[in-house]
Amino acid sequence: MTDAMIPGASEHHGGPGAPISAEQARREQELTDRVVASFANTPGNPRLKYLMETFVKHAHAFVREVRLTEQEWNLWIDFLTKAGHITDDRRQEFVLLSDVLGISMQTIAVNNEAYRDATEATVFGPFFVDDAPLIENGGDIAGGAPGEPSWVEGTVTDTDGTPIPGARIEVWEADDEGLYDVQHTEEQQVYGRAHLFSDEHGGYRFWGLTPTPYPIPNDGPVGKLLDAVGRSPYRAAHLHFMVVAEGYRTLVTHIFVEGDPQLERGDSVFGVKDSLIKTFSRHEAGEPTPDGRQLPPDRSWSSVRFDIVLAPQGA
Amino acid sequence: MTDAMIPGASEHHGGPGAPISAEQARREQELTDRVVASFANTPGNPRLKYLMETFVKHAHAFVREVRLTEQEWNLWIDFLTKAGHITDDRRQEFVLLSDVLGISMQTIAVNNEAYRDATEATVFGPFFVDDAPLIENGGDIAGGAPGEPSWVEGTVTDTDGTPIPGARIEVWEADDEGLYDVQHTEEQQVYGRAHLFSDEHGGYRFWGLTPTPYPIPNDGPVGKLLDAVGRSPYRAAHLHFMVVAEGYRTLVTHIFVEGDPQLERGDSVFGVKDSLIKTFSRHEAGEPTPDGRQLPPDRSWSSVRFDIVLAPQGA
Ligand SMILES: [Fe+2]
Ligand SMILES: [Fe+2]
Repeated sequence: MTDAMIPGASEHHGGPGAPISAEQARREQELTDRVVASFANTPGNPRLKYLMETFVKHAHAFVREVRLTEQEWNLWIDFLTKAGHITDDRRQEFVLLSDVLGISMQTIAVNNEAYRDATEATVFGPFFVDDAPLIENGGDIAGGAPGEPSWVEGTVTDTDGTPIPGARIEVWEADDEGLYDVQHTEEQQVYGRAHLFSDEHGGYRFWGLTPTPYPIPNDGPVGKLLDAVGRSPYRAAHLHFMVVAEGYRTLVTHIFVEGDPQLERGDSVFGVKDSLIKTFSRHEAGEPTPDGRQLPPDRSWSSVRFDIVLAPQGA
Repeated sequence: MTDAMIPGASEHHGGPGAPISAEQARREQELTDRVVASFANTPGNPRLKYLMETFVKHAHAFVREVRLTEQEWNLWIDFLTKAGHITDDRRQEFVLLSDVLGISMQTIAVNNEAYRDATEATVFGPFFVDDAPLIENGGDIAGGAPGEPSWVEGTVTDTDGTPIPGARIEVWEADDEGLYDVQHTEEQQVYGRAHLFSDEHGGYRFWGLTPTPYPIPNDGPVGKLLDAVGRSPYRAAHLHFMVVAEGYRTLVTHIFVEGDPQLERGDSVFGVKDSLIKTFSRHEAGEPTPDGRQLPPDRSWSSVRFDIVLAPQGA
């Protein structure tokens, strides 16, 4: 719903107008009640019945609250139609829509409830792949991806501080052009992703790249919408983690870069949590690295610590 | 979202479970607030800003209230994707979805507020065409469409009972197979539709067909959803009207047939209002017609009265 898509928008008040009559309110409520009642005979799926009833209540409440015009309803249908037509195996405009409205992130939030000091979860994103290479602790996930090297280390523990050895840590990130390997469609190279396991003390460490911001795909209806509401399509720079350990809740999260200006402008999919913003220390070219790795003589690097705390399974 | 589409549905409780912690509630509310705030700088379109803010509040409230699982979120994305892919110039699955959830009808309701005894509005439907033939009062809209003849008459007045002459009355309906002319894709015939004007006393009369029930298109995702919730795709039998007169609110409505068993089962798009259910009187073959028309000797017919009351423009 862009400016151009609501020609009459300037005639509309921003909010609802005069209160409606009692008879009008009765008619609207009766309609909602009738639609809710239509799910009464859902066979053998009480959860589906409950989801549909509750969805209808909220959808009707929206239409009634904003006094949705028929023109606006038409624009919404047109928006969904365009989103459907741009969506294919590689592009998912409905996921983007859910993302930019924070619906994806809210779904993550309700499925990863706060538990003591367990690390917070954030959105999964579309760029994970299942068969990333295995590296040793201290190895390099970049695999030739262009960008500034970044030393990442930390521990995996439970909420009592007990180390968790053998946790599977998947990491993935974009290169310094803001693209993941799978977005470089001309090449088949796997880079900027790997998995490793925490050591016997729960520790882990690897070389990655200092994360850089990148935009979500914005050449479709969702991009037009962001434009119309004056929002940036950029995601704050981040490095993805997924941590799996027997007996613990699987953690899907990112870490973000303290000082990234996009944190001020706002992450386009609302993935940022204050607890996930980490200090990436800057190191001049030539400064000795933690593991003695020899970088090119003109190559600066960064380092960051990320201690991961897992909630118990079922928390 | 069908049974098969929610494999884990039987594991879910029908409603929300244990209450969440204060910290969890704080995190969820903070996220919603942050998304709402992201529309603060919408340039020059306060209505769009208000619509997006309010939509986000309701969408987040739904996710939080039902504790939407990630699997359910995926199914919803998949549902929208399938709806997008079946939608083309002839088929509009998003409109069907809006219809079967009563969202279309609620939009009609908020845009046609109750005004004294003005005739109630209902859904427009997808089968209106702009250039239906003009007939005289007493003419036949069937144009060769198969079905039982039905004599329709009434008046067009304002809410004080003053006749409105010269009102443009568009009427359209399905044939006795439940199909509109535009659905018979092999033929280009126009039938079952026409427009006429009320006479100097506000009166109108024409021959149509006794309406019959028909299903909405149900071979796509919306049909699967109706199946999963145990609902009928059928619309109650109806005859469409659109009445346009200078100085009055345009009325888009139907009349329904008293005694139609589909009224009990429920109209699939919630278009029925009690005030729009009319008595179609039955007449044996051979009974004299109101205008002396000679019907085939074995042809029964029906008759109905529909007095139309228009609200003033801007009411
Ligand atoms: Fe990412
Ligand atoms: Fe119809």
